[in-house]
Amino acid sequence: MQISLSAAEIVDIVRPLASKGATTAIIGGLAALRGAGAGELSFLGNVKYKADVAASAASVILLPPDCAVEPGTGQLFLFVENPSVALARVCARLERTLWPRPAAGVHPSAVVAPDARVAATATVGPLCVVEAGAVVGERAHLQAQIFLGRNARVGDDCWLMPGVVVTAECELRERVRLHAGVVVGSDGFGYEFVAGRHEKVPQVGQVLIERDVEIGANSTIDRARFSRTVIGEGTKIDNLVQIAHNVVIGKHCLFCAQVGISGSTTIGDYAIFGGQAGVAGHLALGKGAKVGGQAGVTRDLADGAFVDGYPAIPIQLEQRIRVLRQRLPALFRRVGDLEAEIVRLKKSSAA
Amino acid sequence: MQISLSAAEIVDIVRPLASKGATTAIIGGLAALRGAGAGELSFLGNVKYKADVAASAASVILLPPDCAVEPGTGQLFLFVENPSVALARVCARLERTLWPRPAAGVHPSAVVAPDARVAATATVGPLCVVEAGAVVGERAHLQAQIFLGRNARVGDDCWLMPGVVVTAECELRERVRLHAGVVVGSDGFGYEFVAGRHEKVPQVGQVLIERDVEIGANSTIDRARFSRTVIGEGTKIDNLVQIAHNVVIGKHCLFCAQVGISGSTTIGDYAIFGGQAGVAGHLALGKGAKVGGQAGVTRDLADGAFVDGYPAIPIQLEQRIRVLRQRLPALFRRVGDLEAEIVRLKKSSAA
Amino acid sequence: MQISLSAAEIVDIVRPLASKGATTAIIGGLAALRGAGAGELSFLGNVKYKADVAASAASVILLPPDCAVEPGTGQLFLFVENPSVALARVCARLERTLWPRPAAGVHPSAVVAPDARVAATATVGPLCVVEAGAVVGERAHLQAQIFLGRNARVGDDCWLMPGVVVTAECELRERVRLHAGVVVGSDGFGYEFVAGRHEKVPQVGQVLIERDVEIGANSTIDRARFSRTVIGEGTKIDNLVQIAHNVVIGKHCLFCAQVGISGSTTIGDYAIFGGQAGVAGHLALGKGAKVGGQAGVTRDLADGAFVDGYPAIPIQLEQRIRVLRQRLPALFRRVGDLEAEIVRLKKSSAA
Repeated sequence: MQISLSAAEIVDIVRPLASKGATTAIIGGLAALRGAGAGELSFLGNVKYKADVAASAASVILLPPDCAVEPGTGQLFLFVENPSVALARVCARLERTLWPRPAAGVHPSAVVAPDARVAATATVGPLCVVEAGAVVGERAHLQAQIFLGRNARVGDDCWLMPGVVVTAECELRERVRLHAGVVVGSDGFGYEFVAGRHEKVPQVGQVLIERDVEIGANSTIDRARFSRTVIGEGTKIDNLVQIAHNVVIGKHCLFCAQVGISGSTTIGDYAIFGGQAGVAGHLALGKGAKVGGQAGVTRDLADGAFVDGYPAIPIQLEQRIRVLRQRLPALFRRVGDLEAEIVRLKKSSAA
Repeated sequence: MQISLSAAEIVDIVRPLASKGATTAIIGGLAALRGAGAGELSFLGNVKYKADVAASAASVILLPPDCAVEPGTGQLFLFVENPSVALARVCARLERTLWPRPAAGVHPSAVVAPDARVAATATVGPLCVVEAGAVVGERAHLQAQIFLGRNARVGDDCWLMPGVVVTAECELRERVRLHAGVVVGSDGFGYEFVAGRHEKVPQVGQVLIERDVEIGANSTIDRARFSRTVIGEGTKIDNLVQIAHNVVIGKHCLFCAQVGISGSTTIGDYAIFGGQAGVAGHLALGKGAKVGGQAGVTRDLADGAFVDGYPAIPIQLEQRIRVLRQRLPALFRRVGDLEAEIVRLKKSSAA
Repeated sequence: MQISLSAAEIVDIVRPLASKGATTAIIGGLAALRGAGAGELSFLGNVKYKADVAASAASVILLPPDCAVEPGTGQLFLFVENPSVALARVCARLERTLWPRPAAGVHPSAVVAPDARVAATATVGPLCVVEAGAVVGERAHLQAQIFLGRNARVGDDCWLMPGVVVTAECELRERVRLHAGVVVGSDGFGYEFVAGRHEKVPQVGQVLIERDVEIGANSTIDRARFSRTVIGEGTKIDNLVQIAHNVVIGKHCLFCAQVGISGSTTIGDYAIFGGQAGVAGHLALGKGAKVGGQAGVTRDLADGAFVDGYPAIPIQLEQRIRVLRQRLPALFRRVGDLEAEIVRLKKSSAA
């Protein structure tokens, strides 16, 4: 990662509310507060690390407005509303260096069906396969080794990273990002048990991924049995997540890594799922529902519900029970003591 | 998905036990009861949705024989033994449109070793790699970007979807379906701790996948340390499942998404695993064993055992304990009350 | 797997401390004690299977020095310090047959940027993509359908199996093995919530994988937000594992399948994680920490800590609580009995 920014350039990007100190250093790297040295930019993104600010050797530090720390010699402190957002703006500048826009066009090694429609501004990278009837939108980027099935549609400004598979009839709207190895449109897991065997239930539906969705590496989104599996606008999905057939997910949800959502469950807007959480099938989860890491949801959730544990229950109750659970050894002793006391009391009252 | 079926054609496919009403609509889509409109086919697959039948606007609805509902104007109700199976038959008809049989032959962009044996009726799609000594059976379909290692064997009528990897010496019997990104024959996870380092234990065994097995997207099946990892006939595995080295799985088992089976465990026929369940290594699970979602199996299971929780115990006990667990706050209060009573009783008896 | 070794050749490989019996059989296969027949080699790797030794028909058996069993006719028992390590040495001999060293050179179907630097002794297999500025070290093996992004570096003697993706700027040191479908350098999962939407935080850091690391099929390692995600020397990672952005892992750790480590957590040398375990973000886990299967770590761990359960607590306490948890039905009865006794005692004392 090549970076070379003057203090003035950084000020221009982050537009601070206030500043303290000054530096003539040219910023050549980003680093956490503790590890940063001269010539590097750092930030306080989590109050947990507040104590590290004073000790940091970073030449420029992005800080929240209420952070009462004085810069050392040659240090510039920039106070911004949200240091994390400010840093993201610096990184966005760097990103263009890391992943320069590819030239438009179809790489000669790609195998593109004659009747596929690839926009003139789109990029189809090396060793991609684009099947008959598929559509690739304006400025869309199929990086390399992508598979796009029959009649699949990739919207404008989508970015599909190496090894992504989008099967027949599935659709991505605008600005969808699929990381390496994502599979969109694998068959749902549906069988009927007939005469001692699991007979396959054909999965002839589609997947619709709305605009601004991002899906992490090696995650899998199953096509519907019929109709559509839907991922709503702006929803972000981490790596190795499983979304089963006929699931309908609202807008702006977050799914951390290794979450699994079973078939036909619907999820409201702004829901959030911690890592490795699981949700049973045919449930309805309300808007803004929150599910803790590793939790297992077995019932419908109301709007705004926050649950944890397995089976998942309201988080306050779950947390209380977790504390009590660790006191079980003491509780068993207490009950034993009570039983002994009762024996003594019965003896003395019989006496 | 293009569909266009008359009522008579649907009757011909599902062969109903009885019918009520009539429709002249041409069926152009499938939909759930609630969302279906005129010109669509729906079905009652789960009694949970029974109330939706009367309100549904679907032109044709598949119903169980005992469903006492009257069709509206222009609606045809078809009573069938199993609406879900009947719908599957309609979908199977559609499937041929979605995924037409590919033409036989090897795509010119595929890289096939001269001494690989590819049946004349097989299809090796674009950008596949087929290494020396590999065998591809009659009518087998390597869709695109498949890797088939040295001496690997793919049986008749198998279907390998884009990005599948089958490594050296592994074998798939007839009609195996591997969804996108499946890896068959990755090394088992085996090391010996020698002089402060984990020294690799070579994994020189194979994987044998019996006929009619289906494996979901991005699942991984490790090769044996020696001898074979085996997936039995008719077993169905969902997405992102991990099967470790030397595991031997019986016939007609079901593994929901994200399940993990540790090394050398054997599993009897007809076993069923809920999503995200895990099984420790070197265990023997009996025929028809059932394991709940997210459960963790740490001991052998008898035939027909149904377990849940972590560590997994018989499900009736686990369910009872889960209820009691939620009453822990009350139990702690009750014990506190008892302790206070004892103090009072002791005082009064001492008095 | 072709194998053909005389008893003398096996003795030469394993160099036993002592031996009993003799065989003229040529060893043509390896098998577990129970299933092995004449002409096969077996071993006692786990005391659990000790009873199987006497009944085994294997022609050669590798045994620990203290194993007092007599060979049958035509059987050779070889006593070695560690039968598992001895078997590994035999398997290492076989491995060369299974995966012969490929010829050096770039396959004509690979797409290699003109300014990528591929060592003359390296192998770049069919249908690989190597982007501008990428470096492939001496004897490195990119097996097939690999993607190597801009300026990515693959060290000497690395082995990347089919479908592996290493994105821009990431680095693998010497002898790293990546199994099929591994993704190194996917974006970290980072967003800022701004005006009702999750705005992407650019992920412009790298991944550094130190020497002798092995990573299992379809696992994913995210690039850092900035700076580096690090996997330390000699660490071994199983299949379907998720390592989030900015995680720093020490040397010689073990991660069983489906483990997930959240962002910015640091892990000391020699830590071990059971299958499906999860670790929250921004934690520090000490050297030699051990985490049980399916456990969920929510706090820092001291050096050598061994935890289990969710939330993870010291394993002795967790195991004790698990036993008590199963006695909850009895405890509720005991408390009910106590309450009844108290009522009786109060009545009798009032009388």
